[in-house]
Amino acid sequence: MRDITIFSGNAHPELANEVCQYLGLRLSPVDIRRFSNDCMYVQLLDSCRESDVFLIQPLSPPVQEHLFELLLMLDVARGSSAGRTTAVMPHYSYARSDKKDAPRISIAGRLVADLLQTAGANRVLTMTLHAPQVHGFFGVPVDHLNALSVLARHFRERGDLENSIVVSPDLGNAKAAAALARLLKLPVAAGSKQRVSDDKVIIDTIVGDVDGKDVIVLDDEIATGGTLIELFDRLRERGARRLSVACTHGLFTGPAIQRLGARDDLDEIVTTNTVPIPLEKRLPNMTVLSIAPLLAEAIRRIHNGESISSMFAERT
Amino acid sequence: MRDITIFSGNAHPELANEVCQYLGLRLSPVDIRRFSNDCMYVQLLDSCRESDVFLIQPLSPPVQEHLFELLLMLDVARGSSAGRTTAVMPHYSYARSDKKDAPRISIAGRLVADLLQTAGANRVLTMTLHAPQVHGFFGVPVDHLNALSVLARHFRERGDLENSIVVSPDLGNAKAAAALARLLKLPVAAGSKQRVSDDKVIIDTIVGDVDGKDVIVLDDEIATGGTLIELFDRLRERGARRLSVACTHGLFTGPAIQRLGARDDLDEIVTTNTVPIPLEKRLPNMTVLSIAPLLAEAIRRIHNGESISSMFAERT
Amino acid sequence: MRDITIFSGNAHPELANEVCQYLGLRLSPVDIRRFSNDCMYVQLLDSCRESDVFLIQPLSPPVQEHLFELLLMLDVARGSSAGRTTAVMPHYSYARSDKKDAPRISIAGRLVADLLQTAGANRVLTMTLHAPQVHGFFGVPVDHLNALSVLARHFRERGDLENSIVVSPDLGNAKAAAALARLLKLPVAAGSKQRVSDDKVIIDTIVGDVDGKDVIVLDDEIATGGTLIELFDRLRERGARRLSVACTHGLFTGPAIQRLGARDDLDEIVTTNTVPIPLEKRLPNMTVLSIAPLLAEAIRRIHNGESISSMFAERT
Amino acid sequence: MRDITIFSGNAHPELANEVCQYLGLRLSPVDIRRFSNDCMYVQLLDSCRESDVFLIQPLSPPVQEHLFELLLMLDVARGSSAGRTTAVMPHYSYARSDKKDAPRISIAGRLVADLLQTAGANRVLTMTLHAPQVHGFFGVPVDHLNALSVLARHFRERGDLENSIVVSPDLGNAKAAAALARLLKLPVAAGSKQRVSDDKVIIDTIVGDVDGKDVIVLDDEIATGGTLIELFDRLRERGARRLSVACTHGLFTGPAIQRLGARDDLDEIVTTNTVPIPLEKRLPNMTVLSIAPLLAEAIRRIHNGESISSMFAERT
Amino acid sequence: MRDITIFSGNAHPELANEVCQYLGLRLSPVDIRRFSNDCMYVQLLDSCRESDVFLIQPLSPPVQEHLFELLLMLDVARGSSAGRTTAVMPHYSYARSDKKDAPRISIAGRLVADLLQTAGANRVLTMTLHAPQVHGFFGVPVDHLNALSVLARHFRERGDLENSIVVSPDLGNAKAAAALARLLKLPVAAGSKQRVSDDKVIIDTIVGDVDGKDVIVLDDEIATGGTLIELFDRLRERGARRLSVACTHGLFTGPAIQRLGARDDLDEIVTTNTVPIPLEKRLPNMTVLSIAPLLAEAIRRIHNGESISSMFAERT
Amino acid sequence: MRDITIFSGNAHPELANEVCQYLGLRLSPVDIRRFSNDCMYVQLLDSCRESDVFLIQPLSPPVQEHLFELLLMLDVARGSSAGRTTAVMPHYSYARSDKKDAPRISIAGRLVADLLQTAGANRVLTMTLHAPQVHGFFGVPVDHLNALSVLARHFRERGDLENSIVVSPDLGNAKAAAALARLLKLPVAAGSKQRVSDDKVIIDTIVGDVDGKDVIVLDDEIATGGTLIELFDRLRERGARRLSVACTHGLFTGPAIQRLGARDDLDEIVTTNTVPIPLEKRLPNMTVLSIAPLLAEAIRRIHNGESISSMFAERT
Repeated sequence: MRDITIFSGNAHPELANEVCQYLGLRLSPVDIRRFSNDCMYVQLLDSCRESDVFLIQPLSPPVQEHLFELLLMLDVARGSSAGRTTAVMPHYSYARSDKKDAPRISIAGRLVADLLQTAGANRVLTMTLHAPQVHGFFGVPVDHLNALSVLARHFRERGDLENSIVVSPDLGNAKAAAALARLLKLPVAAGSKQRVSDDKVIIDTIVGDVDGKDVIVLDDEIATGGTLIELFDRLRERGARRLSVACTHGLFTGPAIQRLGARDDLDEIVTTNTVPIPLEKRLPNMTVLSIAPLLAEAIRRIHNGESISSMFAERT
Repeated sequence: MRDITIFSGNAHPELANEVCQYLGLRLSPVDIRRFSNDCMYVQLLDSCRESDVFLIQPLSPPVQEHLFELLLMLDVARGSSAGRTTAVMPHYSYARSDKKDAPRISIAGRLVADLLQTAGANRVLTMTLHAPQVHGFFGVPVDHLNALSVLARHFRERGDLENSIVVSPDLGNAKAAAALARLLKLPVAAGSKQRVSDDKVIIDTIVGDVDGKDVIVLDDEIATGGTLIELFDRLRERGARRLSVACTHGLFTGPAIQRLGARDDLDEIVTTNTVPIPLEKRLPNMTVLSIAPLLAEAIRRIHNGESISSMFAERT
Repeated sequence: MRDITIFSGNAHPELANEVCQYLGLRLSPVDIRRFSNDCMYVQLLDSCRESDVFLIQPLSPPVQEHLFELLLMLDVARGSSAGRTTAVMPHYSYARSDKKDAPRISIAGRLVADLLQTAGANRVLTMTLHAPQVHGFFGVPVDHLNALSVLARHFRERGDLENSIVVSPDLGNAKAAAALARLLKLPVAAGSKQRVSDDKVIIDTIVGDVDGKDVIVLDDEIATGGTLIELFDRLRERGARRLSVACTHGLFTGPAIQRLGARDDLDEIVTTNTVPIPLEKRLPNMTVLSIAPLLAEAIRRIHNGESISSMFAERT
Repeated sequence: MRDITIFSGNAHPELANEVCQYLGLRLSPVDIRRFSNDCMYVQLLDSCRESDVFLIQPLSPPVQEHLFELLLMLDVARGSSAGRTTAVMPHYSYARSDKKDAPRISIAGRLVADLLQTAGANRVLTMTLHAPQVHGFFGVPVDHLNALSVLARHFRERGDLENSIVVSPDLGNAKAAAALARLLKLPVAAGSKQRVSDDKVIIDTIVGDVDGKDVIVLDDEIATGGTLIELFDRLRERGARRLSVACTHGLFTGPAIQRLGARDDLDEIVTTNTVPIPLEKRLPNMTVLSIAPLLAEAIRRIHNGESISSMFAERT
Repeated sequence: MRDITIFSGNAHPELANEVCQYLGLRLSPVDIRRFSNDCMYVQLLDSCRESDVFLIQPLSPPVQEHLFELLLMLDVARGSSAGRTTAVMPHYSYARSDKKDAPRISIAGRLVADLLQTAGANRVLTMTLHAPQVHGFFGVPVDHLNALSVLARHFRERGDLENSIVVSPDLGNAKAAAALARLLKLPVAAGSKQRVSDDKVIIDTIVGDVDGKDVIVLDDEIATGGTLIELFDRLRERGARRLSVACTHGLFTGPAIQRLGARDDLDEIVTTNTVPIPLEKRLPNMTVLSIAPLLAEAIRRIHNGESISSMFAERT
Repeated sequence: MRDITIFSGNAHPELANEVCQYLGLRLSPVDIRRFSNDCMYVQLLDSCRESDVFLIQPLSPPVQEHLFELLLMLDVARGSSAGRTTAVMPHYSYARSDKKDAPRISIAGRLVADLLQTAGANRVLTMTLHAPQVHGFFGVPVDHLNALSVLARHFRERGDLENSIVVSPDLGNAKAAAALARLLKLPVAAGSKQRVSDDKVIIDTIVGDVDGKDVIVLDDEIATGGTLIELFDRLRERGARRLSVACTHGLFTGPAIQRLGARDDLDEIVTTNTVPIPLEKRLPNMTVLSIAPLLAEAIRRIHNGESISSMFAERT
């Protein structure tokens, strides 16, 4: 394939532009409109015949709109004779629908993977899937990056970690927290989370000792923040000192910003730009780290046929 | 298969209920919610193992939401061991994306057909596709109903047709108008439409003589009504007397109701309930005919293995 | 892919040779024979490993024979490790089977598209599909050329157009006529066609005024010419002066040549060489324009990954 | 599935009617025509919704026409919501293309199997495939009948076998001859065949002793009879006495009837009606046995879910 | 489908027989042999035309042999016209290969799911997948049972639970332990496991307080028991009193029985018969609970189209 | 594709190394292990992004293990973004399951072909398939080599052929023997084989005259040698003088070596290294010819897009 062509939907053009800058490329324009009957219309405005096409589109809210933009862009790239098309989804939010924990529901993480393949995705590039098993939902090759090294570097540079502990909100999903703890040479603890409803969880206990510790809570995604607030209360009851929170996907939907902003015992919120974070959501104690260099390097290696795994000393 | 189970998404539960009443069945409930990260969650609340499942969901605005609800319901029905699943889409709005009339666009009518099949649709039941060729976009069996008999019956019952003519807004798409004209034993005329943009058309001429005639304009779908207003002006210039308009899919998006309501030379707007028409859009001169009996009869015949084609004396 | 290899079946080797001349290539030989039990046998006589293979074969009569030759050549190219295989069908005659206008018939335009894909077609290059929607029948990328620019150039060079009008035989399919009219800056009219049987149509009226006009009738395909003769009679009754007819696909099957030759009010028959026109069918007033330069240029661009859409100022 | 519906193309309606008589069913009518551009048009004239559909069509000459009729009938049955569709091909002539014995040819027996599946065949019912491996070319379930029991019964009833020997024309394909020999308790011999071209073979030797023996030559298919004439000459040279020939598929193409009729040392030609044998080909010494009872019984068992294998004491 | 037919490979005929007894059915015999070149040969010895076929085969050691037996049985059932075929795998051991935690390895849990579908599996019935996400690896409907209710009943009947705690060996996979704890109204703790190699893990800490507690360790599968021994040591160091262990899949491979038998502080080993446990592995303190009633009930419901989810009050 | 990467499973690393030496390449290492639950684990230890990957693995005993290694390596290569992956199986032993000669068995040669494609094989390179029709079982391009030229060269160099005859053990499968006979300009004879069971055959007669002849028996595969011993006895009874045997695939399973070694009238056993032949099986009169040069040349040509067919003067 002759060259790289990068398009972006409406989900996160800033990130796409940043990736293009790292690669020294121009972001190719796309025209996305609605027909008067509300059907979506997508036109790619650069030729992509035989090109190595990358479509950058995290599945951030409004998720269904952004997903459908991506499906249409994939279909157009295929019909326009792209040499290969990679769906670059820094946040694959449907990964949360990864199991059938109630009767007659969809494992939508698999369904969406199949839809992307039907629409023409030849590859997927994504980051920090909610569960590593979601990788196996895809029938096409997946490069699965993670932001742990970016987060770890931040905390190392911040320093003052000797009295810290990494805490996972969920006993049943604590692998990433354990990995970050190892990178930072810290102990780990976990909440025992019971989900009452989508936005309502009870954390009935903290497994592990946080008394007198500075806590770094790690989660893959922060949506409404309901789990975090519940967890912070439990941590304080058990004597935790300073509170920080780190995540890859900072959605901050619904009451999240109000809830987190109201928490004056929260030292720092560290997240990345896998999804756009508008200015009005940027709390004073929030740090947004860029994963554009990681994405750009991965795209460069995919195009050149170089190893992605060697980018990561330790993978989760 | 043992029995029929009917579910409805959020697009048009009234229609689904009406269909169920004709069939003497209860509409099975569905729980459709959003995760806090905006991903969609669907649970079918009745068992449908080995059942003949019908999912009623026109692709009305918000189209992407309703389409995705349908995809999820299809996936759930398959995963829940439905005997067979039929996507009932009284309005398949993506049929408008039926050709590649610009470079690097999607024939989304085909893409969406493929997505529905990927999600688990075994059959499709639909009505008045924008072009009859769209039938061929589907890889699964399609039963394609039309509302011409319903519309024709209305005009026959209204009577006073001796001085009337049926007019198609578009010379290039006049087959249905010609068919209605034959059913009503009337002549036919057509506008020569030039599309400037999605909502802006110019009708530079009327092919056929409308001078002194009562005009029945027939279109498959009314969205913003821009074409109609342009056509009405041309018809009046050429001496048309009374104006009526009939369509199958009455979306009335954007300025449509305001435009049509402001037109005091418009005798009657006749449409059907393939998409929901809220009360505030129901103009005094609007008649909404129900296609629920047609859908119910088609579902009954599909389940019983009886002929659908014999429902229609003349098909378009 | 290293190079272009072009093969031709028995449908139109002259066109294939002409295309090869434009490209400066040698047409690779094929051995097509029958086993004694009438099964077809195809051997490609040049190696095509890793090559960019183009198989030129319009679906001209005998259609089933030519289609099956093409399917076998596709299968051989795949089994012989072709890098990519493009089915070049200047006339995709099965596009006429594009809708289900009677119960229990096939939309064969879709079926044949699927068969070609099963046999190994990676791409399709075709011209002037009967309906633009047929593009969507294919699951592989399609480059859809049209001959309007070639036809328009001919009429412009012939000159004397000021009193002319373009007429479509079919009100329901007048888009191409309108496009040619725009290219020639002429008005447009259309017949209101009713099909009684495959070869028998009634044109009950002409929508538009042809009185005193020189008429250029445009159709996509001329088969037996039955429609045209009916249309010519209607046009003469309404005062049309000189008659010309233009089409892309000049099949002239059955009584076509006799009918058209007997018509001494027919100035000119303009067609192209998408299908072969043997000498005995070349009436004195017939002009056959070559689309080989268009095909050759499209093949060159497909191979080099250059834009096809930029070849056409206006597409239909 | 509710019932059996049987359709026949143009290949062998007599056989289809005979099968229907055995089953006590009416053969459902089909309308097969050509469009004026030579494309094929097929309409099934009985409803087949949810029915167990059997399409009877041997691939007899003109093979491509009959194959395409079958593909269209399959597509129509699927689109018309048949419960299941079985392609009944008493002669699957493309089985002869079963290996790649020259570069850049097609194993068309596999290609055609794939095309049938693409067109909608859910099952196949066939008889005496040229090689038993061809069974494995199909991705759908195949019931593979053979006519050996029918042929053996004929020879047993004719009697006078004590001095007989069964001869295969081809050393490399002598399994069926050996099986017939076992059924008749006779020895077996074989020609060592070298194919020079499709219709020209040399039999350089006879492996086995035929001196003074009455010979029953067994082949699966007789096309032009070239192999047989060559074999008869070799057999006579080696002292064979009376000559008979038996086959399942009696095509008798090209010079076959003239060649065989001119042979006055040929006692009997025994064949079956897997393909139609017109009256003018029925030589005085020819016996045509009907396999309709076998087909009818197989169809009955397929529909009722009974074992097919138990129909055959010994399978080849 | 008319009836149920059940076959078993060599993996666990005792379980298959027990299931058949619950259903009042006879286990249909299978002939599994090796060709002299070591290729496997499978013959189903009962007809299964149109039958609802269940193939019972856990993927127990030798896993590859048992998997291939299952693949062949699936292929035979399809080719033999089974109405529907369900792969019943009480232990889907390849579920352990559920993520890509090293470069260039296979997510074999997905690959094997695809292989089963290719071989003809229409459905899957399985139990206690290593991770619930593995459900999403299958493209066919899966009924995923669990043995928690069976295990919980055992411990409830044993009684004396007031001082007990449920412990998960792995902090990162503690959902099932939490669920069992809830069923037994007990607290939960977890080990922080670091895998050094496939059989070597280090548990560096216990998250949660086990001092003075009677411990019930819950794991999905016990293979060599290496993790358990490590965990037991940690638990004892932290003051745990009595030790019990429960699991669904009791493989007890390699040194497992020796290791566990040598542990005289181990009260009880509770497992189920998803895989066969030969007499020589049955330690005096081992209890093997039968899941045959669960499987039989699920098969009955699948066949009758009744709900499976209603079998479980709480699903994991 | 940039370069060639070659991996080998455990089936035949010596052959893979020899092929690499001919190509001047290094064999890339693979780590193949078992999880403690006996599931297989494969890691490719060299990056193969965008590379032209060849996986060398004959299906030699233990066949199921080696097949599953190959399936996993294919899946890994695909997931690791190999440019193209070719399964190189010098012995495709499942080709013996090529027909359905008993009810309810699998044509496993087709099933395994489908499994390989599901696992990610883009091409197949194999040698001397049991029947040439097996080529058609694969949906991907196959390059089918044969060892006849290698065997013929050996016998020509041995010389002293004037009194020799080539004998096929099986009348029904004598094509290859006839081809070798032609290469050596020798006559041909064949046994009439009846299979009683997998390892037990009766050869009731020899078709052709072997009295006083030096016999070269040719078979594609020698497993237990049961057929050969039976054939040798028949040949001696009919006066054969010296005995030699040649085959492509020398498995020598079970009692083969003991049986052949005990035969002191057996001059020579000629075979190739498509499968490994350990030292303890190398009888004094055994010659093992290497097909590594053939494989290496084929790999080179596949990579470079050069003709394979031109490697063989005569193909079988």
